[in-house]
Amino acid sequence: MVTPKKVLKYLYLPNLFGTQRTKEILHVNPTIIPQREEAAIVRTFVYDYDAESVKEFELKTVESCYKFKNTNTISWINIDGLRKADVESVASQFGIHPLLVEDILSINQRPKMDEVEGVLFCLLNMLYYNEKNQTVETEQISIVLGKNFVVSFQEDAKRDVFNPLRQRLKMNNSKIRQRSADYLCYSMLDLIVDNYYVVMERLGDRIENLEEEVVRSSNTRSLAKINQLRKELIVLKRNMAPVRDLINGIIRSESDLLDDATTKYFKDVYDHIIQAYDLSENYRDIMVSMQDLYINNVNLKMNEVMKVMAIVTCLLAPATVIGGIFGMNFDSIPYLHNQYGFWIAVTVMLVIPVWMITMFRRRGWF
Amino acid sequence: MVTPKKVLKYLYLPNLFGTQRTKEILHVNPTIIPQREEAAIVRTFVYDYDAESVKEFELKTVESCYKFKNTNTISWINIDGLRKADVESVASQFGIHPLLVEDILSINQRPKMDEVEGVLFCLLNMLYYNEKNQTVETEQISIVLGKNFVVSFQEDAKRDVFNPLRQRLKMNNSKIRQRSADYLCYSMLDLIVDNYYVVMERLGDRIENLEEEVVRSSNTRSLAKINQLRKELIVLKRNMAPVRDLINGIIRSESDLLDDATTKYFKDVYDHIIQAYDLSENYRDIMVSMQDLYINNVNLKMNEVMKVMAIVTCLLAPATVIGGIFGMNFDSIPYLHNQYGFWIAVTVMLVIPVWMITMFRRRGWF
Amino acid sequence: MVTPKKVLKYLYLPNLFGTQRTKEILHVNPTIIPQREEAAIVRTFVYDYDAESVKEFELKTVESCYKFKNTNTISWINIDGLRKADVESVASQFGIHPLLVEDILSINQRPKMDEVEGVLFCLLNMLYYNEKNQTVETEQISIVLGKNFVVSFQEDAKRDVFNPLRQRLKMNNSKIRQRSADYLCYSMLDLIVDNYYVVMERLGDRIENLEEEVVRSSNTRSLAKINQLRKELIVLKRNMAPVRDLINGIIRSESDLLDDATTKYFKDVYDHIIQAYDLSENYRDIMVSMQDLYINNVNLKMNEVMKVMAIVTCLLAPATVIGGIFGMNFDSIPYLHNQYGFWIAVTVMLVIPVWMITMFRRRGWF
Amino acid sequence: MVTPKKVLKYLYLPNLFGTQRTKEILHVNPTIIPQREEAAIVRTFVYDYDAESVKEFELKTVESCYKFKNTNTISWINIDGLRKADVESVASQFGIHPLLVEDILSINQRPKMDEVEGVLFCLLNMLYYNEKNQTVETEQISIVLGKNFVVSFQEDAKRDVFNPLRQRLKMNNSKIRQRSADYLCYSMLDLIVDNYYVVMERLGDRIENLEEEVVRSSNTRSLAKINQLRKELIVLKRNMAPVRDLINGIIRSESDLLDDATTKYFKDVYDHIIQAYDLSENYRDIMVSMQDLYINNVNLKMNEVMKVMAIVTCLLAPATVIGGIFGMNFDSIPYLHNQYGFWIAVTVMLVIPVWMITMFRRRGWF
Amino acid sequence: MVTPKKVLKYLYLPNLFGTQRTKEILHVNPTIIPQREEAAIVRTFVYDYDAESVKEFELKTVESCYKFKNTNTISWINIDGLRKADVESVASQFGIHPLLVEDILSINQRPKMDEVEGVLFCLLNMLYYNEKNQTVETEQISIVLGKNFVVSFQEDAKRDVFNPLRQRLKMNNSKIRQRSADYLCYSMLDLIVDNYYVVMERLGDRIENLEEEVVRSSNTRSLAKINQLRKELIVLKRNMAPVRDLINGIIRSESDLLDDATTKYFKDVYDHIIQAYDLSENYRDIMVSMQDLYINNVNLKMNEVMKVMAIVTCLLAPATVIGGIFGMNFDSIPYLHNQYGFWIAVTVMLVIPVWMITMFRRRGWF
Repeated sequence: MVTPKKVLKYLYLPNLFGTQRTKEILHVNPTIIPQREEAAIVRTFVYDYDAESVKEFELKTVESCYKFKNTNTISWINIDGLRKADVESVASQFGIHPLLVEDILSINQRPKMDEVEGVLFCLLNMLYYNEKNQTVETEQISIVLGKNFVVSFQEDAKRDVFNPLRQRLKMNNSKIRQRSADYLCYSMLDLIVDNYYVVMERLGDRIENLEEEVVRSSNTRSLAKINQLRKELIVLKRNMAPVRDLINGIIRSESDLLDDATTKYFKDVYDHIIQAYDLSENYRDIMVSMQDLYINNVNLKMNEVMKVMAIVTCLLAPATVIGGIFGMNFDSIPYLHNQYGFWIAVTVMLVIPVWMITMFRRRGWF
Repeated sequence: MVTPKKVLKYLYLPNLFGTQRTKEILHVNPTIIPQREEAAIVRTFVYDYDAESVKEFELKTVESCYKFKNTNTISWINIDGLRKADVESVASQFGIHPLLVEDILSINQRPKMDEVEGVLFCLLNMLYYNEKNQTVETEQISIVLGKNFVVSFQEDAKRDVFNPLRQRLKMNNSKIRQRSADYLCYSMLDLIVDNYYVVMERLGDRIENLEEEVVRSSNTRSLAKINQLRKELIVLKRNMAPVRDLINGIIRSESDLLDDATTKYFKDVYDHIIQAYDLSENYRDIMVSMQDLYINNVNLKMNEVMKVMAIVTCLLAPATVIGGIFGMNFDSIPYLHNQYGFWIAVTVMLVIPVWMITMFRRRGWF
Repeated sequence: MVTPKKVLKYLYLPNLFGTQRTKEILHVNPTIIPQREEAAIVRTFVYDYDAESVKEFELKTVESCYKFKNTNTISWINIDGLRKADVESVASQFGIHPLLVEDILSINQRPKMDEVEGVLFCLLNMLYYNEKNQTVETEQISIVLGKNFVVSFQEDAKRDVFNPLRQRLKMNNSKIRQRSADYLCYSMLDLIVDNYYVVMERLGDRIENLEEEVVRSSNTRSLAKINQLRKELIVLKRNMAPVRDLINGIIRSESDLLDDATTKYFKDVYDHIIQAYDLSENYRDIMVSMQDLYINNVNLKMNEVMKVMAIVTCLLAPATVIGGIFGMNFDSIPYLHNQYGFWIAVTVMLVIPVWMITMFRRRGWF
Repeated sequence: MVTPKKVLKYLYLPNLFGTQRTKEILHVNPTIIPQREEAAIVRTFVYDYDAESVKEFELKTVESCYKFKNTNTISWINIDGLRKADVESVASQFGIHPLLVEDILSINQRPKMDEVEGVLFCLLNMLYYNEKNQTVETEQISIVLGKNFVVSFQEDAKRDVFNPLRQRLKMNNSKIRQRSADYLCYSMLDLIVDNYYVVMERLGDRIENLEEEVVRSSNTRSLAKINQLRKELIVLKRNMAPVRDLINGIIRSESDLLDDATTKYFKDVYDHIIQAYDLSENYRDIMVSMQDLYINNVNLKMNEVMKVMAIVTCLLAPATVIGGIFGMNFDSIPYLHNQYGFWIAVTVMLVIPVWMITMFRRRGWF
Repeated sequence: MVTPKKVLKYLYLPNLFGTQRTKEILHVNPTIIPQREEAAIVRTFVYDYDAESVKEFELKTVESCYKFKNTNTISWINIDGLRKADVESVASQFGIHPLLVEDILSINQRPKMDEVEGVLFCLLNMLYYNEKNQTVETEQISIVLGKNFVVSFQEDAKRDVFNPLRQRLKMNNSKIRQRSADYLCYSMLDLIVDNYYVVMERLGDRIENLEEEVVRSSNTRSLAKINQLRKELIVLKRNMAPVRDLINGIIRSESDLLDDATTKYFKDVYDHIIQAYDLSENYRDIMVSMQDLYINNVNLKMNEVMKVMAIVTCLLAPATVIGGIFGMNFDSIPYLHNQYGFWIAVTVMLVIPVWMITMFRRRGWF
């Protein structure tokens, strides 16, 4: 039996089509600062290095990092987990403007770059693909580049964004060790942008799977899935698009902190982010094609149903008419008393629909 | 019984789908000045402050504010409720150009920023979300920044837009007290832009609710509701979009009234308004997805109806044909005199549709 | 009875859906000069004024205006009705370049602004809304601003575009009298742009009426009406859009004819034309929503028809089958000789459809 | 009888819907030079003129034009029909760069303007409307402006593009005779751009006819015709759009060949080409509206068919049921032996559908 | 028999609609370097030439090319097949920056141009059309222009992209021999861009074939084919679009490596790439028209089915009703005992549908 409610219910599988996700995507308000929860765990790592040597520390308190400010070596202070007091004290120590502190502590901030009072500030989002919920997740990263130091703040102490960088820092002959702090900053941005491609690959896999589903079965859930994927593309794009301006801002900056020789590297990141954005446009185009295909499939299925109805109606028609004719109670009806009358009538009932179907088939209907 | 009139009537619920609202949105004419009604109530507040002290006055007459023009302290004169005579007299006293007076008194003006004869003028709209009518309402705010004073005009004496600001002014150690008049101006713009996010959250809630409705039941009113929401997005966007230019204009201004140190703060507001605009684009995208989903649901429902018709037609067909065959009045019809003839016929009537349905089901129709 | 021809005929009401109007909109050719008909009536008014006095003349011949060229007072020569000879003689007298004469005499010219040999030239269209034909009509206005004079040319002697200006000129204390010729030019442009809003209000009324019609009845003429309105929006937009460039050109111009103090006023007109253009975009958006709604209504009506068919088919099915069963001529059919057999059969015929409808209704179909 | 094949065949009328035309439009390759066929006929005209006199020559060989290079008078050498050897020899004589020769000989070149080694080069397409095939045809025109000479190359010796110019050259008092070679160049561009309007008028006529067809009958060929027209608009636009840059390039050029006084005239052409482009956008908008209308008409027709089916089904339903009821073979059926029983049954058969139709009609269905 | 599964299966022909292809298109990640496979074959050609002489070498090892760096003649070193070690050693020898080495070795890189430390670097993709898979394939080409040398790297040793160039190099009087290394670089870019047109022609052929298919038969596979073609257009566009910036970058470059006289030639390539891009937009437009036509065809077919059903229903209706009327078992039914009663009834059964069809036909239905 057909159960129309099922048709609508399909869309209501909470894990498939979450209006909850819509809420998360729409409710962005960067202007409210106090909402951020204080991090449960805060981990502070310091890498103090120059071409010759590298020292690695895990600090117990955030305050212990102050001493790394005025060294001749390059210091990378990475703070995982944000607490208001910590950020403020570090900021005041390293000459980071209070407005930037607000940005670091804000949530859902748009990626941006700023030069304030001798430091260069970048805020952008690391993207992750959550396989379980099939959503694009973000982690806000703030990077402060100063003279001989880089301070980076990450939202989540559990995730290890900059791990590959640590490996490279430990290698004596790595380029990162030969160069100044701006190269470290570049390496971090490069790592983040490279990760966008990883997320896009996951989304690309889902698009591909969805396309196969649409092509194969086009069930009633397909459009809901397409819509869900569209939302993740929105999240992807709005985190990527402003990064173009961010990196372009660095390239055009005339800050003393940026070595001319490093500009080439930032240009390289810029090329990558531009290409990532172009690619996300391609994703969108393919999604549109997919939706067209889905709707076409639904229509073709509908046409099939209509055709079956047409056939059955056509099969029914002559039999009904003939049955009606010879079922009338007139006194004199020809063939009624004929021995083969019944068989003639039944034969005609069968011949006419066969002839009709043959004709339709010849005309390319079925 | 089906009542087609109901189908159309649904759209005519005045509180759901107001063509009245269309009129309000379309009939914008900033060029007609005299239409503005004189405010019934006018309330004038003055805050006269510097880093050390703050004095708060509620003036009985607008004229009493003149004396605050040439003080060494910063004076914020806030006039709630617009009367032509008041605005003109204040303007002439504070050196505000007659054209700006026209703007202050106009209604439905596009947000704009201007520097005229030593004062910096901003006109923009505070947005409110009217929960009862589910509409975005506007209140025009004009801010005049001069040397050591800010004069602000609000349309509606009953609404208290700048209340949070008053709290901060009373605090001795607040940043607003340490800085000059341009910081006060910034604080006001910041407050207004922050409120846009509040309105967007309300709209976001409605989008989410509507999405859930579309997903669950997709009734005939859904598209009318989507259309209504689209209109509110139009109101939102046309009030927000010009504010980008307004704040960009302030950042690029070389006016003496603007301290270089304050520019950072205006940049912060600029980031917020840009992000708000981007977000409103996301709203639009999600609305489009929602409409696609709605239309798809309507089509799927239609397909369901067609399928039921197809099934019933198929069930009917063999019974009708067989009934017709054995209802004919031929003399010799086989099985007619057979004891089990009737039961054989009825069995065949039942077996054929069962077989048809089984076959369709195997082919993935139902 | 259904008359399908009526369905198509509806679109053929000449006053509703004029392909004639399409012709008017599409056949624009500014390159053909000689097509302009010589005006039947030409009326020439001169206002010669300064701060102290104003003199008004209605000249019998166009030539009589020459003497106003070299006066110390400001002269506004307004020529209603275009004749080639007149325009050329005035032009040669007032130093207007022959190319500008071509523009003045052309029809369907795109609004433009030019500075040629010491005069500033503006050509734009006054818009009127023709209530009878429900079309947007244009009247080409050319304004030539020179040192101490403004010459304006209007196509149609019967229409009095600049009447409000005349009233203001006669007032001794009006701003227009205190200022130089560029302010007069500004006043004229301001008047024309203000009138765009009047036309838009009329179009807005029609959009609103049409929306109500779509919401209420969605008859077959609605889309034709929407299409017709779209065409008028095309006319509106193509006359308004270039005016933005025109006025921006004046603001950026470094002509000696333009006083710095007047720039503020032109900026005001610029704000108005920008807002008018934004508003026309909103009109378009609402039209799109309206068309979506119309198409949805047509589909919902279709669905209603399908549902009625489904219901009737379902009602018919059991009765037909049962009637067929007991109409068969088998010798032994149960209940046939039962006293209540007939009533049992009829009851079943009624019970089954009632049960079907109940079930469908519970599943949210109707 | 319905013949579904006809439905598809309609689209296959070769002269209606030419995929051949698609090939022509898509297969553009400006990079292949050698494909150009040598012209069968080459005609060379020279006009040698100054303010006082004009001399007209038809040259037998292309080489004879060399002597006109270094005269004090202005020489216009017009070569109709392109042969590689001719173009190359003329080019070398008049100092035209080999790359320009390639451009002149190329086919399907994008309109462009260049200044190379003291000459100014324009390449653009004259457009014609072929009434027979209803296509937009192009003829490539190259214009080389040098000191005191203009050399123009046309593809087709049979067409006389510049005829009106010849008339004007012969008039002693024509402006073209008073001015230098750049004015001749302007006149040629002006002529070409003016002709775009002529082509657009023809396309406008077709749009109007098509609109009337869609409104009146909306037959199955309409969309194919709309598609065909869209293709011609593509041809129109891609030939017009680059001409904007071309003429803008001339206006911004600082070449000595261009007199400041002539710039005004080029600005005039620029205005025309901008307006032509805007107009072509309007064409596109109207085509979109037309297509929406067509699709709506098809749907409305479909709805009509559905309504007729619904009516017939409704008319059939009660008669079938009643016929079935009284056709059953129960022993005791009421009214069966009543004298008026038959007439009562037939009356009910008629009354029910009449009542149904009345009800539907009251509900606004038909 | 209708087999709805076939309808869906059609889309699942692997060679028709490859989701595999979607994967290839979506999975672009230029940030991962190590994925590139080392080329199996590497072939190194050197052309050492000046205006007088040309020498051609096929080198056994890549290292042998070092000696060509500091010669007075122009050296073109072409390396077919990429191996990390080779590229790095050549790079260090010819002063190519390590970042450029990364680019050369990367895959799926966006076309780009860079000037680093005295060399000019171009990376772009040669496009091929794979007739078998009907896909657009790419081969990455890197060109390094230095003082007196050009080093080019190609991915695939089997393809001979620059063959036509070799022919021209061997000709003594060819322009390429007379000029410096930048002209060689231009010739290579020109060759690549020219090839884009070849690929577009192949795509154009497919569009044309597909259009003919849509027009003729519009089978269920057509949309899948359109979608597939859309994907190839995505590949085409994303490889072509950045080349515009690349060549524009060369034109605007102020590098000493570029002779002013060569700029003209680069402008020529620029014109070609712009036109190619415009053309690809036209392709897209025609694809959109085609899809509209396809959907319209599907709808028209559906309408045909509906019409047949309507006709059959109409034919069935009177016969069923009349058969029902005279099949009732009332005692007194008129004409029942009439001799011609049966024939009258059958005649009416036939006359009514004939009359209905006549009426419908007159109203333009069929």
